Amino acid sequence: MVTNNKVVDLRSDTVTKPSEAMRAAMAAADVDDDVLGADPTAQRFEAEMARIMGKEAALFVPSGTMANLVSVLVHCDARGSEVILGDNSHIHVYENGGISTIGGVHPKTVPNNPDGTMDIDRIVAAIRHQDGALYYPTTRLICLENTHANCGGKCLSVEYIDKVGEVAKSHGLKLHIDGARIFNASVALGVPVDRLVRAADSVSVCLSKGLGAPVGSVIVGSKAFIDKAKILRKTLGGGMRQVGILCAAAYVGVRDTVGKLADDHRKAKVLADGLNKIKQFTVDLTSVETNMVFFDIADPRITPDKLCQVLEQRNVLAMPANSKSVRLVIHYQISDSDVQHALTCIEKAVEEILSGSAKFEHLTNGSTANSYGH
Amino acid sequence: MVTNNKVVDLRSDTVTKPSEAMRAAMAAADVDDDVLGADPTAQRFEAEMARIMGKEAALFVPSGTMANLVSVLVHCDARGSEVILGDNSHIHVYENGGISTIGGVHPKTVPNNPDGTMDIDRIVAAIRHQDGALYYPTTRLICLENTHANCGGKCLSVEYIDKVGEVAKSHGLKLHIDGARIFNASVALGVPVDRLVRAADSVSVCLSKGLGAPVGSVIVGSKAFIDKAKILRKTLGGGMRQVGILCAAAYVGVRDTVGKLADDHRKAKVLADGLNKIKQFTVDLTSVETNMVFFDIADPRITPDKLCQVLEQRNVLAMPANSKSVRLVIHYQISDSDVQHALTCIEKAVEEILSGSAKFEHLTNGSTANSYGH
Amino acid sequence: MVTNNKVVDLRSDTVTKPSEAMRAAMAAADVDDDVLGADPTAQRFEAEMARIMGKEAALFVPSGTMANLVSVLVHCDARGSEVILGDNSHIHVYENGGISTIGGVHPKTVPNNPDGTMDIDRIVAAIRHQDGALYYPTTRLICLENTHANCGGKCLSVEYIDKVGEVAKSHGLKLHIDGARIFNASVALGVPVDRLVRAADSVSVCLSKGLGAPVGSVIVGSKAFIDKAKILRKTLGGGMRQVGILCAAAYVGVRDTVGKLADDHRKAKVLADGLNKIKQFTVDLTSVETNMVFFDIADPRITPDKLCQVLEQRNVLAMPANSKSVRLVIHYQISDSDVQHALTCIEKAVEEILSGSAKFEHLTNGSTANSYGH
Amino acid sequence: MVTNNKVVDLRSDTVTKPSEAMRAAMAAADVDDDVLGADPTAQRFEAEMARIMGKEAALFVPSGTMANLVSVLVHCDARGSEVILGDNSHIHVYENGGISTIGGVHPKTVPNNPDGTMDIDRIVAAIRHQDGALYYPTTRLICLENTHANCGGKCLSVEYIDKVGEVAKSHGLKLHIDGARIFNASVALGVPVDRLVRAADSVSVCLSKGLGAPVGSVIVGSKAFIDKAKILRKTLGGGMRQVGILCAAAYVGVRDTVGKLADDHRKAKVLADGLNKIKQFTVDLTSVETNMVFFDIADPRITPDKLCQVLEQRNVLAMPANSKSVRLVIHYQISDSDVQHALTCIEKAVEEILSGSAKFEHLTNGSTANSYGH
Repeated sequence: MVTNNKVVDLRSDTVTKPSEAMRAAMAAADVDDDVLGADPTAQRFEAEMARIMGKEAALFVPSGTMANLVSVLVHCDARGSEVILGDNSHIHVYENGGISTIGGVHPKTVPNNPDGTMDIDRIVAAIRHQDGALYYPTTRLICLENTHANCGGKCLSVEYIDKVGEVAKSHGLKLHIDGARIFNASVALGVPVDRLVRAADSVSVCLSKGLGAPVGSVIVGSKAFIDKAKILRKTLGGGMRQVGILCAAAYVGVRDTVGKLADDHRKAKVLADGLNKIKQFTVDLTSVETNMVFFDIADPRITPDKLCQVLEQRNVLAMPANSKSVRLVIHYQISDSDVQHALTCIEKAVEEILSGSAKFEHLTNGSTANSYGH
Repeated sequence: MVTNNKVVDLRSDTVTKPSEAMRAAMAAADVDDDVLGADPTAQRFEAEMARIMGKEAALFVPSGTMANLVSVLVHCDARGSEVILGDNSHIHVYENGGISTIGGVHPKTVPNNPDGTMDIDRIVAAIRHQDGALYYPTTRLICLENTHANCGGKCLSVEYIDKVGEVAKSHGLKLHIDGARIFNASVALGVPVDRLVRAADSVSVCLSKGLGAPVGSVIVGSKAFIDKAKILRKTLGGGMRQVGILCAAAYVGVRDTVGKLADDHRKAKVLADGLNKIKQFTVDLTSVETNMVFFDIADPRITPDKLCQVLEQRNVLAMPANSKSVRLVIHYQISDSDVQHALTCIEKAVEEILSGSAKFEHLTNGSTANSYGH
Repeated sequence: MVTNNKVVDLRSDTVTKPSEAMRAAMAAADVDDDVLGADPTAQRFEAEMARIMGKEAALFVPSGTMANLVSVLVHCDARGSEVILGDNSHIHVYENGGISTIGGVHPKTVPNNPDGTMDIDRIVAAIRHQDGALYYPTTRLICLENTHANCGGKCLSVEYIDKVGEVAKSHGLKLHIDGARIFNASVALGVPVDRLVRAADSVSVCLSKGLGAPVGSVIVGSKAFIDKAKILRKTLGGGMRQVGILCAAAYVGVRDTVGKLADDHRKAKVLADGLNKIKQFTVDLTSVETNMVFFDIADPRITPDKLCQVLEQRNVLAMPANSKSVRLVIHYQISDSDVQHALTCIEKAVEEILSGSAKFEHLTNGSTANSYGH
Repeated sequence: MVTNNKVVDLRSDTVTKPSEAMRAAMAAADVDDDVLGADPTAQRFEAEMARIMGKEAALFVPSGTMANLVSVLVHCDARGSEVILGDNSHIHVYENGGISTIGGVHPKTVPNNPDGTMDIDRIVAAIRHQDGALYYPTTRLICLENTHANCGGKCLSVEYIDKVGEVAKSHGLKLHIDGARIFNASVALGVPVDRLVRAADSVSVCLSKGLGAPVGSVIVGSKAFIDKAKILRKTLGGGMRQVGILCAAAYVGVRDTVGKLADDHRKAKVLADGLNKIKQFTVDLTSVETNMVFFDIADPRITPDKLCQVLEQRNVLAMPANSKSVRLVIHYQISDSDVQHALTCIEKAVEEILSGSAKFEHLTNGSTANSYGH
C-alpha cells in the first residue's frame, strides 16, 4: 500500500533532524560546565541571541515549556499573582497547567480572536489590583503568543504588540511573548524580530521548531530578569553541564535556517491551495500566514482520526487539530515535491475512506476538542 | 441631610446582625475542644446539616471561601489537577485565585450564561484526560454555583444540575456546588435542598448570608470526603476550639431563617419593581429570582460610585456591581418599610446628582470591571 | 470505677470552657461585617492587642495554625524562600507541614536545645543567600517559639530573643515568634510582653489556650505586615463576618485570665512535685517553668497509652507526649483540688496497671515517637 | 607564575569534556522527536539503563536536580506529603528546596552520620501517618544518597539499603536513591549496581559526573512510575526533542567510563595520601572510599578561599567545602601526573600564602557554612 518509502512528517516543525552542519558543530563544540558558568559556546550563543532579539541577556533552556514556565514564574514571583493570557494560548492549553500546578500562578483567560489577538479592552477589564480589595489575586503579567499556534500560525502585528505593551506599562504589569515561532512572524510580517518584541519584558524563542535545532529554547530579557531565570532554571532542573553541544547546533540553526522560513511559508500556501481544491475540505486561505495549514473536513465520514491513520499507512504523518480539522506544518526539510506527494496521498486517502477500502487499527472516539496535541 | 437614623444595609446578605435567639444560643451553648473532636454542639450541628443536605457528613468551617477551597483541594488532591468552572463564578473571580495560588489547581473556565449555567457541551469539550497525552493537566472536578451571585442570584434547576452530575459521573469527575445561597435556590425553585444537590459530591453552604449566622459555612459530602476535608481544614488553620459557640448560632439561623427566604425574595421583587420605575434605571425583572437585584444606570451622569456615595450619606448602603450597575441584596433584617425607604432615598439621590447638589468625597475611577466585591 | 463525676481535663490548655463573663460579652457584642471592615468589636480588640504587644497593628484569625501560617507566608512572599526554625517547634512538627504543602516555603531546621533555644551559631550557619550561588533557596525568616511546647513549656529569655533579633536584622531576615503561650512566658519571666517580643517582626498569640477564649489567635506586627496578612487570611478562608462575637470573648480572656497565669504555674509545680514522688515516674522539676508538666515513666509495664486510658476511666484526661512520657497542662479552670484529685487518680491507675486489674479497650502500638498531638 | 598551561580541574566530576567517541556518537546519532515518543536512540538508551539498573523502565532528564525533583514529586503525588531525608543530603542542601518551593512537599530531615547513613531507628521515629491525627503531613518517601557527596563520597552498603528498604516497605513508603554517583558506589563496594539498588522504588543516576556524558541523568523505576515521571518531566519543561543526541553521548559514557571508575578511586587515594603529608592539612584516609577527597586545614592563615584562589592562578581548580576544608574530585580525565602536578601546586600555594607572597583578588568572607556549592 505504501507508495513512497520516505516519510513526509507534517505533524509539527519540531520533527526536523539536525543538519550535517549542526552535527559537525556539535562534534567540534568547545564546551565546559555551564552550571559553573564556564561553557564558552553557551555564553557566545546566549550573547548572540540577546543581540538578535534586542534584549540585554539570554538563557538557554531545554524546552519551550520551560522557557514559558520560567518566564511566567519570574514575573509572578510573589504569592497571589495572576497572569492574563489567551484562552487558546499554548501556555494555557498545552503546558500541563504548570504555571498553576507547579508555580501557583492563577490564570485569567481572555478569549483569543481567530487572529490570535485578545481585545485590548478585554485585557484592560481583566486587570485586577489589590488596592483595598481583599478578593483578588494581583495581575502581574500579560502573555501574548506570536505566531499563535492554535489560531493557525497567525501573526500578531507590531502595532498590536506595542499597544498591549503600553497597557502593561501603564498598569505596572510585565509583558511576556511566547515566541516559539517568533521568527516566522518576523519573516511573514517583514518586521525585524527585535522590533517585533520591543515592547516585551521577556520572550521565549523555540530553537527546535522552524530553526531546526535538535533541542532547546532561549529566554531573553533584561539582565536582572535573566539572573532570576537562571536560578529558577536550576530549581526546575534545567541547568545542564556541557550544554554548549546543544547551543552549537542551535547557533547553526539560527544562522542557516531563519533565511529559509519565507520558503516554508510559500510551501504552506501551495499546500493550502491544493487542499482547498479537494471537495471534502475547506481551508481559509487568508489564514495561512506562516508555516501552518489547518483544513476543515466537511464530510462526516472522514474524521481527522481516520484520515491521519490512512495517511500514516502511506508514510505521511499528520495530527488532528480537533474533531473536525487537521493541522499540517511545514519546515525546511519538507521539499516542494514532498508537498505534492502529501497532496496526492491525501486525495487517495479520501477516496479510500469514502470507498470503504480503508483499514483502521486504533480509532479513538475523539469526543473532546482537547484530546489533541500541539 | 440624613432623614432616617436607621442604616438600611443592602450591600450583601452577609451584614445581618445575630438575632436575640442566636445570642442566647451562643451564651448557653454546651461546648468543648472541637479540634480534639469533643464539641457536642458542633457535632450535633454538623450531623443536622448533613441530614438536611442529604449527605453522609458535614464540616463547619470559618468561611465560604474556606468551604470552597477545602472542597476543591480535596477533590483535586493530586498534583496536576484541573477544575472546570464558570468564568464568572465566585470561586474564580472573588476568592483570590486560592485554588491555584494556595492549592496549585489549574482552572479551566467555561463561559457562564446569563442564567448562571455553563453549556453542557462546552463543559464536555473542556474535559481533559492524560491518556497518553503529556500536555494536559487532568480534569478532576466540575464546579457549579447556585444561586449564581454574579448572574443576579439566579437559580440552577435540578434538571440542569442532574445533567452536569451525569456528565461528571460518566467522565469519572467529581461535582462540587458552591451553595453559598443554596437555600435561596431551594426556596425559589420549590425543590427540597437535598434533592437539589443530590448529584453533587460536595456542597458548600454559607451560614452567614441569608441564614443570618454571625460566622461560618458548612461543607457536606461523603464521610470519606469530610475526613479528608477535616485534615485540610486543620492545615489551612480553620480548626477552631470551642466552635460550638458559632454552631449554636448557625443552628438557630437554619431553624428560624430558612422560612423567611421566600419573603426576602418577595421584597426583592418589590424593590426591583420600584427601581424599574425610576426613569434612569432598568431592571430585568425576570432575572430577579431570589434576593438580589441588579439595576443598570442609563444616564452617564449617574455612576454607580456616585450613587452609592450619596446613598451612604442617607444611611442606605449599596455596592457597585460594575461600572454601570448596582447590586442590592435583601435579607431578613430588611423590612418592607426599609425597602420603601431605600427606594425613596434612591430617587432623591438621583435628583441630587442630576441637579448638581450632591457632594462626593472619594470617587474612584472605576475603570476596570473587576474592582468591585461580591 | 469512676470516683468523681467532674472531668479533670489536663490534655491541653485549649480545653477551657468560656466563662460566664465571656458568654455575656458574646451575647452583648456590637458586631458588623468584618470582611467589609466594619466590625467595631473586632477593631477595638485588634487595636488593644496591638497596644499590649507593642506593635502597630493586629489581626484576629481563627486559629494558631493560621496565625503562624499567615505570618510565615507573608514574610516568605517570594517563591524560593527558606525559613529557619527549630526541629522540635510546633510549626515544624504539628502544623501539617502547611508552610511547605500550602505555602511552598522550604524549612531549614536547627536542633532545639532542651530549653527551647537553638544555638545562635547554628542559626547563623543555616542562613543562606543566593549571591551568585544557584543551589539554595533564600533564607527570609527565623522562627522562635515561646514558651516552647515540645520543650516542656520552657521560656526563651528576652536576652536570647534580642540576640536572635540582631542576627535576623544583620542578615536582612525577619523574626517571627510563635507566641501561642507568650503570656505564660511573660509572667514566668517577669518581663512585660511587649518587651519580650520587641525584637520580633511578627508574633502569633493564641487566645484559646491559657487565656481561655473559645476561639482564635491574633497576629501582631507592622501595619504593612498586617495589611498583607489580611489578604492572605482571606485567601486561606479565615475572613469571618460578625467575628466581633469571638473577639468579645477573647477580650474578656485577656482582661481576666492573664492575671491567673502565675497561679497556673504554681499549680503545675505542685503537680510536678506530686508526680515526682510516685516511684515509677521522674519529673525534671527545674524544667517546669510554666503550665506544663512532662513526666517520664521508668516502668515498662506502664506505657503512656495504658496510663491515659485508665485515667480516662476515672475522668482524668491526659495525653501521651511520646512513647515514654506523658504531658499534663494546667489552665485556670483546674483548681488546687483538681490537681490533688488527679494525683490520687494517677497513683491508683499505676497500682491498677501493675496489679493487672486495669482494662484497656483500644491500645495503639505507639511505635513511633510522632504519633501524638500537641 | 603559572607553571603548566593545562588546567587541572578538581572542582567536580561534572567538568569532564565529551570524549572523541562521544562526539562521534552525537554526530552520527539516529534521532527523532522524543516528545512525540519517536526518538530511537533515546529509547534504546533508556531501555539499556533500565536493564543495567535492574528496573522496568528509565527516563532521560536534563539534570540530576530534575531527576530527583521528578522522582520525589511522583512518589509524593498527593497534597500533604512528607519525605524523610538526610539533613546533609544533596536534595535537601543543594537543590534550591525545589521539592517544597516547586512541589509543596514537606521535608523531614534525619541527621546524616559521617558515613552518609541515617540511623534506622531515627528513620522509623520520623515516619508519620495521618490515622486519626490531624496535625501531620503523611510520610510517603524515604530518600538515600549513594555515594553521599557531603559525607565525602562514602558508600552506603547493600545491607544498609536493604534494611531501609524493609522499613519503607513495612510502613507503606517508597524508597528513592539519589544515585548521582551510584556507579562509584557499585565499583567501590564490588556490588553489581542492580543489586545495590534492588530495594529502591526509584533511582536517579547522573550521566554527566563520573560517566563523563555532557548532559543528563536518568531515572529508573517501575513502568507505572516512569509513566508518571514522563508527564511531570513535560510539566517542568524537561521534555526535549531530538534528545537522542545527548543519549548517544551518555551511552558511550556508560560503555567506556564505568570501567575507569576504579582507577579514579585509586587516584583519589594517592591524592589523599599526598595531601595528608602536607603539614597544615589532615585527611581522614579511611573516608576516601571513591573519587572525592576532603582535607581539613589546620592553619588559620590558610583559608579554603585563599588556597583555592592561589591554586587557580596555577591552573589547578578546586572548591571550598566549608570554612575549614577543601573538596577535590577525581574523574577519568585526571591523569596520575595531573594528581602529582596538583599536589606540587598545592604545596607551593601553601608556602606562598604562609610567606605572604600570595595575591588575592576577590576574597569572600566565607562566614557561613552553606555558601559553597556541590
